[in-house]
Amino acid sequence: MLRSCSRLVKRPIHWTVPPCGSRAASSVGVLKPFSGSPFWGTTVRWCQSGLAKNHCSLPDSEPPKDYALPNSSWSPEMVDEFNKFTKLEKDGTWRKLPSYRNVIEVVPEKLKQVPYMLKDRGTRLFLRNIDEEGMGFEYAMFLNPTEKRLVSMVQFGPYLEGPPGCAHGGSIATILDSVLGVLALCVVGRVMTANLNINYKSPVPLGPAVLVESKLDRTEGRKVFVTGEIRSHDGQTLHAEAEGLFILWENLPLNNKPK
Amino acid sequence: MLRSCSRLVKRPIHWTVPPCGSRAASSVGVLKPFSGSPFWGTTVRWCQSGLAKNHCSLPDSEPPKDYALPNSSWSPEMVDEFNKFTKLEKDGTWRKLPSYRNVIEVVPEKLKQVPYMLKDRGTRLFLRNIDEEGMGFEYAMFLNPTEKRLVSMVQFGPYLEGPPGCAHGGSIATILDSVLGVLALCVVGRVMTANLNINYKSPVPLGPAVLVESKLDRTEGRKVFVTGEIRSHDGQTLHAEAEGLFILWENLPLNNKPK
Repeated sequence: MLRSCSRLVKRPIHWTVPPCGSRAASSVGVLKPFSGSPFWGTTVRWCQSGLAKNHCSLPDSEPPKDYALPNSSWSPEMVDEFNKFTKLEKDGTWRKLPSYRNVIEVVPEKLKQVPYMLKDRGTRLFLRNIDEEGMGFEYAMFLNPTEKRLVSMVQFGPYLEGPPGCAHGGSIATILDSVLGVLALCVVGRVMTANLNINYKSPVPLGPAVLVESKLDRTEGRKVFVTGEIRSHDGQTLHAEAEGLFILWENLPLNNKPK
Repeated sequence: MLRSCSRLVKRPIHWTVPPCGSRAASSVGVLKPFSGSPFWGTTVRWCQSGLAKNHCSLPDSEPPKDYALPNSSWSPEMVDEFNKFTKLEKDGTWRKLPSYRNVIEVVPEKLKQVPYMLKDRGTRLFLRNIDEEGMGFEYAMFLNPTEKRLVSMVQFGPYLEGPPGCAHGGSIATILDSVLGVLALCVVGRVMTANLNINYKSPVPLGPAVLVESKLDRTEGRKVFVTGEIRSHDGQTLHAEAEGLFILWENLPLNNKPK
């Protein structure tokens, strides 16, 4: 899940040392420092072994590519949904969130402060790791900060297969974790997923656009409760519904938190 | 999740028509036929549009490649675990399950009956969609049919990133859905995921081997309850724990069900 990098901006460190905080335990408050993990040394050795060499194609001078834009693989229904929410941006109720290959701030003005997140890291965001357009995840997210809602139009490509012709249950979990988590990030602050509970209601076919809708349910201290569902483009078929519990792992709000 | 293709063997159909049954509703018994979905026509049009052309590199004469074997990207700890369970195969308590790019039977002798699953489909199993060794999921599964347990050694590659340096919550959900689902498939029969509930306890770093262990908890009619967890290679760190509910969508057991 995406999260803020403001701490990294203040204290830049070599990427081979995982800067992420500990994934929140179900019991809130049990947040162990990641550097205490027995994997610390192993991870560093693995990253230095040559396997995770520079696979990022972005030169220093090139601005990061926003992948949350229509391309030739998008179905007419997918483009229709995108255009519908793009029009809603005009009155300020909804805003499109850009999407990149590496884990970076969701707000563009912060990008220039985290150039090392875009190069020499050798990693890719799980949802953006397929080069060919249309073969993996195609999606764009729109945020309504006032209503604390996030909507995403999604197309599952043929490389996300589980049952023949249908999306893998893990790919469905992946887009739900992302949509719910990005909403929590944008509205509350830097969070980690603590629990994800998914009811799979009907299979998601590879190809047609579906809509993922999420809303902030409530917060209790550092706990952030978010719900979401995946429906067919016409709204007639409920494919999956999910509840997510995210833990705010730094009480300071994001500077760029939507007002 | 993998599942049997025996129905397809009996009635081969063009791959562009999703042959999967309806994903089981949480309320068991509400299994609508997939062909009644409003997506039916849209899916067929999308598949015929040229996007999902043949991306499968397997010629007719070539046997399918089993990806659940050590390669140069595997860490020493990953290879150690693989070798440990390979030795346990000798007394018949554990057996290694092969893993392919397309959704096919888990038992090799069935492969020759489903050649159309290996070619001209343009799809890939979600967990096997990265060409470069070590960049995506690296894993092998071993089944203990008597104890109804399945163990998988897993390495999360740099293209599965969520938080910087760590596995995406969706990639963790993906391997859990797969391990729990394959166990249910092997021990009970063809199943669909109905519910997946994951507690994320501590982050999974990209690189080091982890162990995913699952066991069949119980069955109630067509409901199959499976639990699982992800631990560090040395067993000291609990990364995630999961409960899965799977629905047996055909009462006939697999012919190749492990005895």
